[in-house]
Amino acid sequence: MTSPKPEIVAIGDAIVDVIATCDERFLEERGLQKGSMRLLTPDEADRLYADMGPTRETSGGSAANTMAGVAALGGSAAFIGQIAADQLGTIFAHDMTTLGVRFDTPPISEGPPTGRCLILVTPDAQRTMNTCPGASHELSAAALDERLIGGASVLLLEGYLWGPERPRATMLQGIDIARRSGCKVAFTLSESICIAGRRDGFLNMIEQGSIDILFANEDEALQLTARADLDGALDELSAKVPTLVVTRGAAGAVGVEQGARTAVPAVQVERVVDTTGAGDLFAAGFLTARCRGQSIERCLGAGARAAAEVITHFGARPGADLSKLVDQ
Amino acid sequence: MTSPKPEIVAIGDAIVDVIATCDERFLEERGLQKGSMRLLTPDEADRLYADMGPTRETSGGSAANTMAGVAALGGSAAFIGQIAADQLGTIFAHDMTTLGVRFDTPPISEGPPTGRCLILVTPDAQRTMNTCPGASHELSAAALDERLIGGASVLLLEGYLWGPERPRATMLQGIDIARRSGCKVAFTLSESICIAGRRDGFLNMIEQGSIDILFANEDEALQLTARADLDGALDELSAKVPTLVVTRGAAGAVGVEQGARTAVPAVQVERVVDTTGAGDLFAAGFLTARCRGQSIERCLGAGARAAAEVITHFGARPGADLSKLVDQ
Repeated sequence: MTSPKPEIVAIGDAIVDVIATCDERFLEERGLQKGSMRLLTPDEADRLYADMGPTRETSGGSAANTMAGVAALGGSAAFIGQIAADQLGTIFAHDMTTLGVRFDTPPISEGPPTGRCLILVTPDAQRTMNTCPGASHELSAAALDERLIGGASVLLLEGYLWGPERPRATMLQGIDIARRSGCKVAFTLSESICIAGRRDGFLNMIEQGSIDILFANEDEALQLTARADLDGALDELSAKVPTLVVTRGAAGAVGVEQGARTAVPAVQVERVVDTTGAGDLFAAGFLTARCRGQSIERCLGAGARAAAEVITHFGARPGADLSKLVDQ
Repeated sequence: MTSPKPEIVAIGDAIVDVIATCDERFLEERGLQKGSMRLLTPDEADRLYADMGPTRETSGGSAANTMAGVAALGGSAAFIGQIAADQLGTIFAHDMTTLGVRFDTPPISEGPPTGRCLILVTPDAQRTMNTCPGASHELSAAALDERLIGGASVLLLEGYLWGPERPRATMLQGIDIARRSGCKVAFTLSESICIAGRRDGFLNMIEQGSIDILFANEDEALQLTARADLDGALDELSAKVPTLVVTRGAAGAVGVEQGARTAVPAVQVERVVDTTGAGDLFAAGFLTARCRGQSIERCLGAGARAAAEVITHFGARPGADLSKLVDQ
């Protein structure tokens, strides 16, 4: 199933999601901010896990979910991310490769175990993520395959990996390889990039023209620009990147290219079960359509349809064959 | 959450289910018999796993599912089964204890890994199970807690564990403890008990009066008695056990006590997604109601309602708080 020359390559967290439902009080009692992502130490993760109800496990990771989506949509994808040589790592690798995503990063046999994300889903289908990144943050430049990245049309980078120094350096080296080869660089923001200290470095990078396509949700766009109005944030960011895509949950999404804004509504679904992965799958739909040369309106539409599918069930990976969604 | 003195104690496989959907052809090409359970060597399991699509993982095991159901139904339960000291074992233990099932069996740190069951679900919601029992078959009599079993009202044993010698000896010792203490012995059949060589030993045991409550599905009842007619099988088996419960899928279930038959219809559900665990949850409903002193008709009804819930979603564990189902 694996494509010999993937069009889209991603660098991101290699994570197994550990999903439980909970009520609002569970979050309140632990001071967890609904909808957020925070990093946990292994001890903190063990304590939270012990409090959580019975769980189901599925492979996750933001950019990894996007590559799973690209493959399910009929595109060709590869993923670079660090697992450990353990049972959760085996599960992660299996789920990538059997979806048709090329995944060659060798597991580490020493150091932390494969990363996991403890996800609490409240009755309103919001997800609150508690990540113990484990091996994921050990990603080194040795994992980069120059020919793989150089041969692709798009390199997608994940903001969650921008925090820790080693994977950030790896991603910067990935950007260098991509730019030398004419491969476009896409970056998906995440809350963690918006915190003080990281924001300035990131804004400098996009001012230097290193990013071709920037994905953000509304909150992240506001935080990154330190603004309260979306209009201003869209203007500021779109002046720095050729393609800006901002998702707005139930309010749909907006894309900006060459100063022109295009908005699409969200696709209605019968029942929203778990919003985990909505943004990741939106990016999958957008990038797959873009690689087929489609207009920004059609790319946004494909993103909205892919996101709509993933929120109808638990887990951040596509639950069905999505290959007909892109060209609708 | 864990009850100090569980009413129902089970001995069974400690298994994590690894679930993927597949089409009919996938089963045909591999000669897999739909609806069956077969045992795999670790190599066979690795090969099948590599062919399966992306999976989701949830805790499983027949009697373990039943104890999870008892806890979700508001009953008090304990489980005895062998896990290894690995990530899947940690998941299994977590899912039992956070449901409120007492689970104290220490993991083994040498030998095979925690058992897993590769489950293929076809579009007709049938499940085909491929079990790599791993540590599960290492269960020794050292795991038996005499006070735990002696203090319970019911000891449930699982037919899948009847095949291998060591856990069979452990179960026989469990039966001895139960009978000395006035604890009823329930046994849930499984295909594996019906094969030549095992059948005679089992029939001898029930003739000796060691089993108080026997659960079987229609196929198992026919195979165990080597009959083609359900009527004859019900007569033959009910003469040997005080309480016989036979589940018949969409045709409901029948119970026989003191020669009198009681039948209940299946509970209709909007959409059957995955029938894995239907029999296990039926037993949970039945036993929980029985511990509350309810009539066989009400016990069968509680079983049918618990089974109906578990077939509406993937995985063999309850997807919701079932505590109102028993007394309906």
